[in-house]
Amino acid sequence: MVLNEYLNKYPKLVENYLKEFFEEKKKKLEDPYIVEVFDAIYEYTMRGGKRLRPLLMIVGYKLYGGEDEEEIIKASASIEIVQSFLLIHDDIMDNSDLRRGKPTIHKIFENKYNNKKLGENLAIIAGDLASMYSYEIFENLNFPEERKIKAMLKMTKIIEDTGYGQILDVLSFFREDFNEKDLLKIHEYKTAKYTIEGPMIMGAILAGSDNFDLITNYAIPVGIAFQLQDDILGLFGDEKEIGKPVTSDLEEGKKTLLIIKAMENEKFRNIIMKYLGKKGITIDELNEVRNAVKESGSLEYSYMKLDELVKMAQESIKPIDNEVKRFLYEFAEYVVKRKF
Amino acid sequence: MVLNEYLNKYPKLVENYLKEFFEEKKKKLEDPYIVEVFDAIYEYTMRGGKRLRPLLMIVGYKLYGGEDEEEIIKASASIEIVQSFLLIHDDIMDNSDLRRGKPTIHKIFENKYNNKKLGENLAIIAGDLASMYSYEIFENLNFPEERKIKAMLKMTKIIEDTGYGQILDVLSFFREDFNEKDLLKIHEYKTAKYTIEGPMIMGAILAGSDNFDLITNYAIPVGIAFQLQDDILGLFGDEKEIGKPVTSDLEEGKKTLLIIKAMENEKFRNIIMKYLGKKGITIDELNEVRNAVKESGSLEYSYMKLDELVKMAQESIKPIDNEVKRFLYEFAEYVVKRKF
Repeated sequence: MVLNEYLNKYPKLVENYLKEFFEEKKKKLEDPYIVEVFDAIYEYTMRGGKRLRPLLMIVGYKLYGGEDEEEIIKASASIEIVQSFLLIHDDIMDNSDLRRGKPTIHKIFENKYNNKKLGENLAIIAGDLASMYSYEIFENLNFPEERKIKAMLKMTKIIEDTGYGQILDVLSFFREDFNEKDLLKIHEYKTAKYTIEGPMIMGAILAGSDNFDLITNYAIPVGIAFQLQDDILGLFGDEKEIGKPVTSDLEEGKKTLLIIKAMENEKFRNIIMKYLGKKGITIDELNEVRNAVKESGSLEYSYMKLDELVKMAQESIKPIDNEVKRFLYEFAEYVVKRKF
Repeated sequence: MVLNEYLNKYPKLVENYLKEFFEEKKKKLEDPYIVEVFDAIYEYTMRGGKRLRPLLMIVGYKLYGGEDEEEIIKASASIEIVQSFLLIHDDIMDNSDLRRGKPTIHKIFENKYNNKKLGENLAIIAGDLASMYSYEIFENLNFPEERKIKAMLKMTKIIEDTGYGQILDVLSFFREDFNEKDLLKIHEYKTAKYTIEGPMIMGAILAGSDNFDLITNYAIPVGIAFQLQDDILGLFGDEKEIGKPVTSDLEEGKKTLLIIKAMENEKFRNIIMKYLGKKGITIDELNEVRNAVKESGSLEYSYMKLDELVKMAQESIKPIDNEVKRFLYEFAEYVVKRKF
């Protein structure tokens, strides 16, 4: 499978470059208090994750005939550092203690200085700094200036759109009128554009392309499918595989499509309202919600949507005829079949 | 005076362009919840301020013979939006309720949704969005691509350095070992580089220059002088003129050069320690601190430093022989003579 081949090859190379980039920057820093925050960002970025966004930037580049693997791998590190920036700020907003099994940045400094506010302040700064590092990746890239500036501005637009999605997301819990349309808008901004379409377009730009319809037609449905699958795993997945408590989406009060659809029926609405946002959900309570989601037909509805979206995406890439086509086809399948 | 001529001319033109930029962006937004956050950033940016950073970018451009006033005015709006970004996040970190006499962004949304955490979350996002808007300014600028990308990367570096200064700043209150050297490093990062040197270099880059020693030699001393004067006004200034309570620096526990120097003597140290960081300082208490700062010789020390720095800056511009020289000479004077 091309998918496996790429997954085995590129994320590792991106990580190597990330390490090189951070080590190089670190040499220029002296003050121990600054180095400490820098190191936290560095370690946080190296904790892992699937590195899907850099991979998709590389794929977007290859899709339009890009051949300089070394440079596109470097470039793709930018979007992974954007991910650190956004997650560091998300962690503050969500009051999360852990990220990938280790303390979040605000927790690291809260613990160190025994002061919650100071921890949050340093994490706000750390996120802002990571954002700057992602731009600095472009400093030494060997692409034509015109493409570099276009890619930087595309990255800017991606982050902007993600911010808009985040506004809707943080308000969702407080809004009575929050509905399926709003939710799909969040998924479009925060997942489809940010995780799939944006990185692919950045890669295409660096390869010299200036028409992105093909990417958009593929990436938006795949991205939304990706998020729907995330939500399904978040409620029905295996804790060990998804790497977080399977009650956490429910306890956070996440209004996923599964939840919204089930709540359209009053009986199931009442069951869900009892537990949505409640802390310390038991397994029995979780199963009650799971049953409500199943019996209401909401789980089936999500599966149907998923299927539709993946077919739409696979249809859209028919005109392509290079190696990348297989990757994209397989990636769309992977999105629905993955267990984590 | 060239200084007055520039102050009367450019800030207004920058504001006109800022307005145009935000109005243009606003047209593309639909969702009312997103528009609300956007409008808050827009209004916050238009509240005023001296617009010194854009002015200094324009000056840096003219210094190297730049002649396209329209384009450099547009470009200079970028650094003013950076200022919004940094202030929005600063306001959260400092727990400030007011900025230029109106509610800070986190307060606006805290009040609206009656939820402190939600207010802070939306303000973190708003700052991140403003940061992106500052990059987007470059999208439609009519300068060679190579200069644009260099200026964008310089802006990135300025923000990064400001972040490093901010780390030292938020930690200063918690550090026993905080000294004059640390303080001057904060001033160098947060004021000299960010407010004076950085914008001037961005302008010089856009004019095609690639040697910035002249700017650095002028801007670093002026920038540090600017901050020292700020600190003097913050303790001895006129409330109506400085636009904030004259007790606020003291209540925030700000370790300024005035405070650090006075604290080197045990007698004055004890007086200051009683009030530094205390809320609800009275006029008598304020005067006690003022007297300690005067009697210890610390105020005089700051004035001496100021004088030295301004002379150093004025000396550095002797080689220049165009109109901008007069501006720079007068600006250095203004920095120490200003009352707000």
